[in-house]
Amino acid sequence: METTPPARPAAPAPDLRVEGCTALVHGLSGDDGPDGIGFAEDVDVEVSGGLITRVGPARDRSEPRGAPPPAEVLDGRGLLAVPGLVNCHTHAAMVLFRGAAEDVDVHTWFNGRIWPMESNLTERDVELGALLACAEMLLGGTTTFADHYFHMDAVARAVEVSGVRADLGWASFSSDGPAGRERGLDFALRQRGAAAGRITTSLAPHAPYTVTEPDLAVVAEQAREHHLPVHLHAAETLEQTRASLERTGATPVQVLARTGLLDVEVLVAHGTGVVEADLPLLAQAAERGLVGVASSPRFYLKAAHGTTPIRALTSAGVPVGLATDGAASNGDLDLWASLEVTSLVQKSLGGEGDPTWMTSRQVLHHATTQSAQALHLADPRSSRGAVGRLAPGFRADVALLDLSAPHLQPVHDLAATLVHATRPGDVRHVVVDGRVVVRDRRVLTVDVPAVLEELRPRLAALTRRDVGRIQTYRP
Amino acid sequence: METTPPARPAAPAPDLRVEGCTALVHGLSGDDGPDGIGFAEDVDVEVSGGLITRVGPARDRSEPRGAPPPAEVLDGRGLLAVPGLVNCHTHAAMVLFRGAAEDVDVHTWFNGRIWPMESNLTERDVELGALLACAEMLLGGTTTFADHYFHMDAVARAVEVSGVRADLGWASFSSDGPAGRERGLDFALRQRGAAAGRITTSLAPHAPYTVTEPDLAVVAEQAREHHLPVHLHAAETLEQTRASLERTGATPVQVLARTGLLDVEVLVAHGTGVVEADLPLLAQAAERGLVGVASSPRFYLKAAHGTTPIRALTSAGVPVGLATDGAASNGDLDLWASLEVTSLVQKSLGGEGDPTWMTSRQVLHHATTQSAQALHLADPRSSRGAVGRLAPGFRADVALLDLSAPHLQPVHDLAATLVHATRPGDVRHVVVDGRVVVRDRRVLTVDVPAVLEELRPRLAALTRRDVGRIQTYRP
Repeated sequence: METTPPARPAAPAPDLRVEGCTALVHGLSGDDGPDGIGFAEDVDVEVSGGLITRVGPARDRSEPRGAPPPAEVLDGRGLLAVPGLVNCHTHAAMVLFRGAAEDVDVHTWFNGRIWPMESNLTERDVELGALLACAEMLLGGTTTFADHYFHMDAVARAVEVSGVRADLGWASFSSDGPAGRERGLDFALRQRGAAAGRITTSLAPHAPYTVTEPDLAVVAEQAREHHLPVHLHAAETLEQTRASLERTGATPVQVLARTGLLDVEVLVAHGTGVVEADLPLLAQAAERGLVGVASSPRFYLKAAHGTTPIRALTSAGVPVGLATDGAASNGDLDLWASLEVTSLVQKSLGGEGDPTWMTSRQVLHHATTQSAQALHLADPRSSRGAVGRLAPGFRADVALLDLSAPHLQPVHDLAATLVHATRPGDVRHVVVDGRVVVRDRRVLTVDVPAVLEELRPRLAALTRRDVGRIQTYRP
Repeated sequence: METTPPARPAAPAPDLRVEGCTALVHGLSGDDGPDGIGFAEDVDVEVSGGLITRVGPARDRSEPRGAPPPAEVLDGRGLLAVPGLVNCHTHAAMVLFRGAAEDVDVHTWFNGRIWPMESNLTERDVELGALLACAEMLLGGTTTFADHYFHMDAVARAVEVSGVRADLGWASFSSDGPAGRERGLDFALRQRGAAAGRITTSLAPHAPYTVTEPDLAVVAEQAREHHLPVHLHAAETLEQTRASLERTGATPVQVLARTGLLDVEVLVAHGTGVVEADLPLLAQAAERGLVGVASSPRFYLKAAHGTTPIRALTSAGVPVGLATDGAASNGDLDLWASLEVTSLVQKSLGGEGDPTWMTSRQVLHHATTQSAQALHLADPRSSRGAVGRLAPGFRADVALLDLSAPHLQPVHDLAATLVHATRPGDVRHVVVDGRVVVRDRRVLTVDVPAVLEELRPRLAALTRRDVGRIQTYRP
């Protein structure tokens, strides 16, 4: 397997070389689907200017002596390189509320717990929460996340500092009036391309049940005018779909369609309420490369929401990326658990009780290629850049896994090991945009103890539920 | 909270003292159920002769100077002590087949993968697999497991060497003839109390679909005569229950009842096929303290088997312990994942779609008290000893967790943190029977690299599927 572009011999010394690792690669035998995922042994991954420039046989055997040495080397022997994981939908700063909204139905979760507590949030709280979340994600090998929240300049600063990659959208409700929507647009235009290009931005209306149809239509128009994607919650539950049908005569996805949101790049979070009638609409948008769905299956089970119908979405050609949602629903930002639970749940619920469906390679395809597609980060020619693959032209986002621990041995099938046994703690080094941000299981960019120390005295005020409520959940 | 027995002042120096930790404790306000689980701060855990002798306020403030110092001290400051986890049903050595039987239905899993591969097993293979499994479990804070497999003297040696605690049963099929059953009895009598009492034993007929009713009745008689518990698979799936009804006119649980197995101490693995008609029988046996069920929910989802009806079993008073099954079905032996998936799945499937059911404290009660009950290791007066609680008189099996990592912070609810965010890698030290066997995330008793080195050349032969088949799955 040699994927070097023809210009290599004249190329300058790489900034970074990961030497002698095994690498998860795509496109074997020209197959861009799950079956084209394989594992190349004893390869180097070379990086220049934040991009992967070469993934091929380890240098010491393939290269003439005298080739220019890289500025930095990571010893990859005994390690497995995988594309940095992509968390397609989260609210990073909600780690602040981890464990503070447990064992309740979604109405109580919103109205009795989360929306009251969120009325306490200051911009500094969000920054501290986002820093903690970035540290958690990087330590677990997640190198990109899509964030939909408030005080997003604070999240952008956390992304800048921590070295992670993110697509950021400032959430708005119709109850905020036009000012909320304009703040979201202003943010998206101002921060697009920030952090040396690691920040991309989206418009982020909250959901069809909190944003009116006329307002959704304005957002669609803004998206078209400014070439911005839209990231929103929709069809989160079947209850929402039924309520939408009663209220408007249309499913949430039909609302997206008739407000123009399926004619722009759009990321739909959750979709456990997607029904048969939605599939042709989603299929048409997917055909044009516009729509992706983010699935974070742990919370759906916890809230008894069923799960995203990935089998039906796959048949409709809709990319489905994997996600964690926020830690206040999901417990943590562990994307490896999302991989495994996706496998388990899709075999049981989403796949109609078929244990041969959603193989480990299918899960890995969702976690890499399809997650990048869902975030509109799959095309190396796009100004947004591309992630999710270890191949020349893709951003150099790499997680290096140490598979020597007893819980991972022996290995009969690396894909199964990744999906069913790998834990965040198995990630040893992490590279984002060519920069080493986690080395030997330590995050180099975030001072976690200092963040926690500043956070501790704020927690009591943060979790008060008697002050206000940012919104009322009424699906 | 002070639970020191009256004799303390005259007691000799403890063998071990864990100093200044937070501790998960049971029985607060006299409540032995989930609501009686709490977290005592700044306590010492003292150990003598392999037993916990005191859990109470940290010494430096509560004790007169001059008290005899312990032989060994573990600094528990900043750590959370929990009872070592109890894996109620596994096949430890099946880590050998981790990832070798993926994405297939249970018929193919047995007949096309596992039972052909198991015909290759030598006693030394089982010993190496069991050593690796013991290392994995100890590193993750699992200090007791119930093992149901072959070549069990090899597993006993791995238990002896690794320092873990286990209840061991040598599996038998009716197709082995009386010799298989006698081997199981001989093993159980010979190894009972081995490894300084860390080994208890059970009789282990495989399942009602592989062992005839007359043979099950003989096992029940042996169990009664020799005061041995029985550990077997039963009602693993609804398909098995239906097939049993067709073949015998009785459900698998009714078969247990009419062969006498519900009149002796019995551990039923899986039970996803338990139906309404079984509940009165199980309730009666539970009333007499005889029956427990082991639930390993990850594999049930993976195989699309539904899940153990824990809500119904709880209403019937049947203790349900948590388990992993073998790594060839479950991917690994991560009991923390079983805790979380139990919460998620019981809220969705086992709890009839009720997100307020199976709270984190309920899960912790299953993982501690009920797991110990299921293994008949819950009574400190019994010669088998008692585990699952940090309290005087219980065996000193303790996992000390480091909760400082970003994925665990901040903590609003320790029970939720344990169930939804804790991973095996958060376990820092592990004590079994008063002996430190994991220190600073390193297992002190098993030479994992040497095990893997010896194992590597055996793997090709181990996974051949063209040699034989130990049995045919025909539920």
